[in-house]
Amino acid sequence: MSNHVYKIVELVGSSTKGTDDAIQQAVARASKTLSNLDWFEVVETRGHLLEGKVAHYQVKIKVGFRLKD
Amino acid sequence: MSNHVYKIVELVGSSTKGTDDAIQQAVARASKTLSNLDWFEVVETRGHLLEGKVAHYQVKIKVGFRLKD
Amino acid sequence: MSNHVYKIVELVGSSTKGTDDAIQQAVARASKTLSNLDWFEVVETRGHLLEGKVAHYQVKIKVGFRLKD
Amino acid sequence: MSNHVYKIVELVGSSTKGTDDAIQQAVARASKTLSNLDWFEVVETRGHLLEGKVAHYQVKIKVGFRLKD
Amino acid sequence: MSNHVYKIVELVGSSTKGTDDAIQQAVARASKTLSNLDWFEVVETRGHLLEGKVAHYQVKIKVGFRLKD
Amino acid sequence: MSNHVYKIVELVGSSTKGTDDAIQQAVARASKTLSNLDWFEVVETRGHLLEGKVAHYQVKIKVGFRLKD
Amino acid sequence: MSNHVYKIVELVGSSTKGTDDAIQQAVARASKTLSNLDWFEVVETRGHLLEGKVAHYQVKIKVGFRLKD
Amino acid sequence: MSNHVYKIVELVGSSTKGTDDAIQQAVARASKTLSNLDWFEVVETRGHLLEGKVAHYQVKIKVGFRLKD
Amino acid sequence: MSNHVYKIVELVGSSTKGTDDAIQQAVARASKTLSNLDWFEVVETRGHLLEGKVAHYQVKIKVGFRLKD
Amino acid sequence: MSNHVYKIVELVGSSTKGTDDAIQQAVARASKTLSNLDWFEVVETRGHLLEGKVAHYQVKIKVGFRLKD
Amino acid sequence: MSNHVYKIVELVGSSTKGTDDAIQQAVARASKTLSNLDWFEVVETRGHLLEGKVAHYQVKIKVGFRLKD
Amino acid sequence: MSNHVYKIVELVGSSTKGTDDAIQQAVARASKTLSNLDWFEVVETRGHLLEGKVAHYQVKIKVGFRLKD
Repeated sequence: MSNHVYKIVELVGSSTKGTDDAIQQAVARASKTLSNLDWFEVVETRGHLLEGKVAHYQVKIKVGFRLKD
Repeated sequence: MSNHVYKIVELVGSSTKGTDDAIQQAVARASKTLSNLDWFEVVETRGHLLEGKVAHYQVKIKVGFRLKD
Repeated sequence: MSNHVYKIVELVGSSTKGTDDAIQQAVARASKTLSNLDWFEVVETRGHLLEGKVAHYQVKIKVGFRLKD
Repeated sequence: MSNHVYKIVELVGSSTKGTDDAIQQAVARASKTLSNLDWFEVVETRGHLLEGKVAHYQVKIKVGFRLKD
Repeated sequence: MSNHVYKIVELVGSSTKGTDDAIQQAVARASKTLSNLDWFEVVETRGHLLEGKVAHYQVKIKVGFRLKD
Repeated sequence: MSNHVYKIVELVGSSTKGTDDAIQQAVARASKTLSNLDWFEVVETRGHLLEGKVAHYQVKIKVGFRLKD
Repeated sequence: MSNHVYKIVELVGSSTKGTDDAIQQAVARASKTLSNLDWFEVVETRGHLLEGKVAHYQVKIKVGFRLKD
Repeated sequence: MSNHVYKIVELVGSSTKGTDDAIQQAVARASKTLSNLDWFEVVETRGHLLEGKVAHYQVKIKVGFRLKD
Repeated sequence: MSNHVYKIVELVGSSTKGTDDAIQQAVARASKTLSNLDWFEVVETRGHLLEGKVAHYQVKIKVGFRLKD
Repeated sequence: MSNHVYKIVELVGSSTKGTDDAIQQAVARASKTLSNLDWFEVVETRGHLLEGKVAHYQVKIKVGFRLKD
Repeated sequence: MSNHVYKIVELVGSSTKGTDDAIQQAVARASKTLSNLDWFEVVETRGHLLEGKVAHYQVKIKVGFRLKD
Repeated sequence: MSNHVYKIVELVGSSTKGTDDAIQQAVARASKTLSNLDWFEVVETRGHLLEGKVAHYQVKIKVGFRLKD
């Protein structure tokens, strides 16, 4: 167990609802093609503005998953 | 289109509701005096505590807007 | 008043609900044993993934409180 | 002379030609409304891609200028 | 009270006396044109040397002030 | 449109001509195997020296592209 | 001697006099309850403004002290 | 030779032996599926604790490899 | 299980043997007074030199442990 | 070959032409007194402004060179 | 004038009086062997504690000076 | 004693054995030409890969030494 290796991919999720949902969107998309997702780390939070309001929250995350031995 | 210049202002929004709302408060205030708001970036998240609870979330953001040529 | 000294402790709160609640969890726990909590600063946001979804949001914060003279 | 105060504004210049020209664009725009521009510092370099090529270089700079006493 | 928005401006104060005075110079200049100054944060400390001595201390600070609602 | 997810890959482009061309080289190579390239961010600029001159500029960039839903 | 372990606590000292005195205030307070204080590192310098002047300098420091074996 | 492009992947290796071995584990795993591995950079060193001892060292590294033209 | 709160303490371990052992020394000392140690993160690696050799490796780490509910 | 030691010096090159040339200027100057120059890394890019234009680009670089055994 | 090259050396000055004096000490020492000193930048501020007081302030600075052509 | 000034040089040591030995190599080389070496700080850890293994560990360190008065 002690010698597992993990890979990390970087994604940006976007959402009109909020930052937590933007994270969920990115994780959901990653889980379509990757298995054994283990953790995420937020790298950057930003967003697009339209007519003086937040149109989309955009959260850049790193997602770590265990590689098969 | 390729030579637009953008200006960035730094603001702190505060909210009793949460971090997403603190961002919205800052953006709403910026839109009162600035036009063509285009994006925001979160710089720092902090808050004020009162009686062992979060009294206000305070989010420092940078807001970018297009300058007229 | 001008010579108050504050101490800062570092905590990680976790929550299934979201990042704002993870902050609240950490602050609530700190208030059990510390008085005069004054502010928090977010240091890092990450989380645990399970079956392609966010299982827990984990927010590392610094909490500042006033020391008695 | 020793007590001059300088103000710093943050701008993003864009250019189809390159990063140096993007800096020049931002500086040129700043000089339309500000006097006594003194120095710039590059904060971030990024750009927009279109059809597999760099469409615009975008350079975020800080511009410092001397305030009148 | 909870939804106040603050704006942050970046300044460089200089002084022949020392770093604390350089901060005071920048704050004093800011107070000529801005109201409700609330806090400052030091961003960078540097200075100019002449004949093997510090000629001016230069302190770059961010100054936060409350915007009127 | 609001729920697009972007992936980011990290590349190092090199060029004898300059830093802008090194970015172009990396982007051109990425476009051979990836579609919907959207933006790049410069992470680091360095280079190799030979006989007291810059032999190659090497620019490390992150390239973001939209994932298909 | 080679296997000593040190603990680090984070404090904010404040002073109306200046940044050096703010450091001294924090160290003096730490020495009331901790022994073997060995070094400090400045983490952040900020302050509170009142009527266009620096009301308090606030310096966040880390203080290291040797733990008994 | 001057226009080679390199790709960088991020991995976490773990080891019960130490940090150097954790790096070796990650590199060995990467070499199973990638060719032309050229360099690594340490991004972060952490580990898991069990019964008051280091159970696994975990080293996050970036691994760079040359892409075929 | 989802609402656990963790506390983080910062320590410097030293060792004549190497960096891995310096980490072990700090963790071993922490486990004398703290329970439920869960992870560590390396913050800084430095050391003391004597007669042109490394006399002690000094590793600053953060140690996280679960607080009782 | 495996035990080579490299030294790094920090330089600022300036140029009226652009950032790439500023790097070349610094490298050329270093090569007058140092041998075996091997690589450079850009630390900071800034410049001096005059009459609303970039007068000089100033690039701070680190230059690494192999020490003789 | 536009192609001057500057070299930067890193020094730590110490003083029992304060941080400003520690900077002066380092600059004064540098001026004994180097000419054309032009600017300094503070990199880190720390100090040594003795009997619950600051024994020495230690300021790490970079000093830039113009190289002869 | 309180006004000692220290100089810092930056070196990269390399080793086929591991990161601790790479530090020792750089320190040993520095001690050939410099006296009064006092401390080192690790700046960056990287290495060269060959045939899917770590060929050399490369550790960039800063070495501080006391200047004669």
